[in-house]
Amino acid sequence: MNYEHYFGANREKHLAELKEVLAIPSVSCLSEHSPDMVRAAEWLANKMTEAGLEHVRLHRTNGHPIVTADYLHAPGKPTVLVYGHYDVQPADPLDLWITPPFEPDIRDGKLYARGATDDKGQLFLHIKAIEAILKQEGELPVNIKLCIEGEEEITSPSLLHFLETNQELLAADVVVVSDTPFLDRGKPSITTGLRGICSLEATVNTANTDLHSGLYGGGVPNALHALVSLLATLHDERGKVAVEGFYAGVPDISPLMKSEFAKLNHDEEQLRKNLGLDALYGEEGFSFAERIGARPTLELNGVYGGFQGEGMKTVIPREAHAKITCRLVGDQDPQDILDKITRHLQRHMRPGAKLSVQSGVKIRAYDIDPSDRMLRLAADAYEEVYGTRALFTKDGGGIPIVEAFARLLGAPVVLMGFGLPDEKLHAPNEHFNLENFDKGLLTIVSFLKKL
Amino acid sequence: MNYEHYFGANREKHLAELKEVLAIPSVSCLSEHSPDMVRAAEWLANKMTEAGLEHVRLHRTNGHPIVTADYLHAPGKPTVLVYGHYDVQPADPLDLWITPPFEPDIRDGKLYARGATDDKGQLFLHIKAIEAILKQEGELPVNIKLCIEGEEEITSPSLLHFLETNQELLAADVVVVSDTPFLDRGKPSITTGLRGICSLEATVNTANTDLHSGLYGGGVPNALHALVSLLATLHDERGKVAVEGFYAGVPDISPLMKSEFAKLNHDEEQLRKNLGLDALYGEEGFSFAERIGARPTLELNGVYGGFQGEGMKTVIPREAHAKITCRLVGDQDPQDILDKITRHLQRHMRPGAKLSVQSGVKIRAYDIDPSDRMLRLAADAYEEVYGTRALFTKDGGGIPIVEAFARLLGAPVVLMGFGLPDEKLHAPNEHFNLENFDKGLLTIVSFLKKL
Repeated sequence: MNYEHYFGANREKHLAELKEVLAIPSVSCLSEHSPDMVRAAEWLANKMTEAGLEHVRLHRTNGHPIVTADYLHAPGKPTVLVYGHYDVQPADPLDLWITPPFEPDIRDGKLYARGATDDKGQLFLHIKAIEAILKQEGELPVNIKLCIEGEEEITSPSLLHFLETNQELLAADVVVVSDTPFLDRGKPSITTGLRGICSLEATVNTANTDLHSGLYGGGVPNALHALVSLLATLHDERGKVAVEGFYAGVPDISPLMKSEFAKLNHDEEQLRKNLGLDALYGEEGFSFAERIGARPTLELNGVYGGFQGEGMKTVIPREAHAKITCRLVGDQDPQDILDKITRHLQRHMRPGAKLSVQSGVKIRAYDIDPSDRMLRLAADAYEEVYGTRALFTKDGGGIPIVEAFARLLGAPVVLMGFGLPDEKLHAPNEHFNLENFDKGLLTIVSFLKKL
Repeated sequence: MNYEHYFGANREKHLAELKEVLAIPSVSCLSEHSPDMVRAAEWLANKMTEAGLEHVRLHRTNGHPIVTADYLHAPGKPTVLVYGHYDVQPADPLDLWITPPFEPDIRDGKLYARGATDDKGQLFLHIKAIEAILKQEGELPVNIKLCIEGEEEITSPSLLHFLETNQELLAADVVVVSDTPFLDRGKPSITTGLRGICSLEATVNTANTDLHSGLYGGGVPNALHALVSLLATLHDERGKVAVEGFYAGVPDISPLMKSEFAKLNHDEEQLRKNLGLDALYGEEGFSFAERIGARPTLELNGVYGGFQGEGMKTVIPREAHAKITCRLVGDQDPQDILDKITRHLQRHMRPGAKLSVQSGVKIRAYDIDPSDRMLRLAADAYEEVYGTRALFTKDGGGIPIVEAFARLLGAPVVLMGFGLPDEKLHAPNEHFNLENFDKGLLTIVSFLKKL
């Protein structure tokens, strides 16, 4: 069977289809997009049916729909559960997009749209790879299940519940996820660890009203002053998180891990240039790969208060807000970390200002033994298509449900992604490199056949 | 002549008229409101004509229109220039208003609307007081000029130019402004000093794109971290501005001034309660009255960067912004202060982040000798109507053009306001106390007659 020929012949059709689903603004965190979530889920269900998959079902949840399907006609062969997500991040700031986020556009061999690489483009590869095998050979070499959700970007609350209550439906020998990036163009990687995450929102309140800075300025607390001086205490001068006990449960990086990270050979100078930075920045004593793979973080994702419009407004704001997330590693417990941050913030509050804290997601880190057979088969598939062996890496980004898949299904999770590190996921001008679109299809076919 | 009877008989009509102009959203800092600025200016011009004033003119400027008028039929008598402004602050946050900001509503003896006390309500008193004298007596006891502008909230750039080029038209023996608050209900005050102001916007940039906190978190600079740690350096632990040289030109508070401030007798505990604060806050070693009257400040009016929407977004923001204003006293030079702040910010920048600073307004502080005869006549007028003598106070809020009036016209500026300190100017639920509406009319009539 010549899959290269098949995918080449169908390339325009496949890209046109992918553009259809990329045009749906399925932003999971904004409730006004609920109808778009249903449209995206239905679109996927239709494509699964067209691909020849069976038992295609759209499951209503308290949040956004989950789509499942299967093709279980290979008795004695392993069962593969393919996971992906059709929801995307908000597209703002809109003015920085060269073409609008939900009007997909191909330029210079890249497909630009919100969700192009994260994750509609990557999950689409699996549907089309399965369709290709069924059309070319009339059967699949393994049993296949698909489980596609719409809440990955908001930490998968519905899928977690669905997984807990539908373990039979989702039971599998291996879970495959394509939602991670290569090390670089032509340099595939397989992710053997994901950081966990926890989040909180801190609000500082001062007076019961905004006040005029002329009449009150200098005599009353300013919520923004209180907030920025509070947030400035969260890190020390050397880039470490200054919250007491934050690093409890963080494993030292072993000599073996050190050498694995060194192999990754990130070109930090090139990375710095690509990002337009004067300097990279992070915890002293660690390389970039170690910082993003093996070290926990505390990041400010949003800070706001007071006047943001054109011109000036001489106001003393009554409230100010911070959105904070932490990436977690090893045995760090999300609730424990949230408690420690809350205590730290309370201890550092200024007189006259009041603090309230609302906690959000709580997801532990995930790790898999790099010697797992499934990982080796995936590495073989990459090598066959790309001519280079995938390196094993730790990934800084969480895919929230992965830890739960491993724990509840007792199956290894193979994180074999086709993104590139500069594809601007979660940022303006997100795109998907079409070289990986083409080779990704072949790699998935190869992997399924090797199982 | 019984003015109390006259104003009582016309009260409903006057309030209905005032509501008309309060319904016009004349927000000077937002360019989309330009047509509203013209509507408000034309409304005022019509009211001046109805009042019997002459030479009513609407002057086009590079910004918003200036309205002038006069009535010069008292040879040998002093000429009074009345100044006021028809522009208002933005009304956001809108959701905190009990009734909409541009749908005036009277509740509990207060007129609620954006601009009710600052300054449409107060300037309206002058037009109606002049109208009353002309209707009752057929002539005015002094020569009157009016000059009403629409850019006070954006520091009067057009009026400054207009004043420089129309000194003959505006020449007067005394300038009267009603745009300041009482010490408390029934406790009038005359302002003998106004702080100056300077403003700047600081922007911190890091990478050339927003980045995913999972893939990059811990390894790259975060614009928000850089900004908050920078802003936190602007004050020390004791509430002082920590910018080198900031206090140069700030006069010590003399024993005489100390005793004047002590006379003001701010009930700090009551103030604290009214504002819903756990504690007042400011520079150590000074009372509230001293802090807002005689000390300079550096306030954060707005800080923003990253994600502000519903839910969470795991983004490392590429840029973050701060809007800063300083209130100035004594001989502090606005440009010098802006230079010092800029140098301070540059010195405290983190590695990997870039700073840009844009400066805005630059207005010096204004002071008048409390023994000026015009001030005493104003105090007499208050005493006649309120039964209590107005105290002389320093006001923390700038009325930008006042310093230029004094300097260019060589005339004393009498700041005789009718606001109350809790009328929420610049904040949601701004209002004007109708007791001061009624008594303000009488006080202005009395003042004009005493001149």
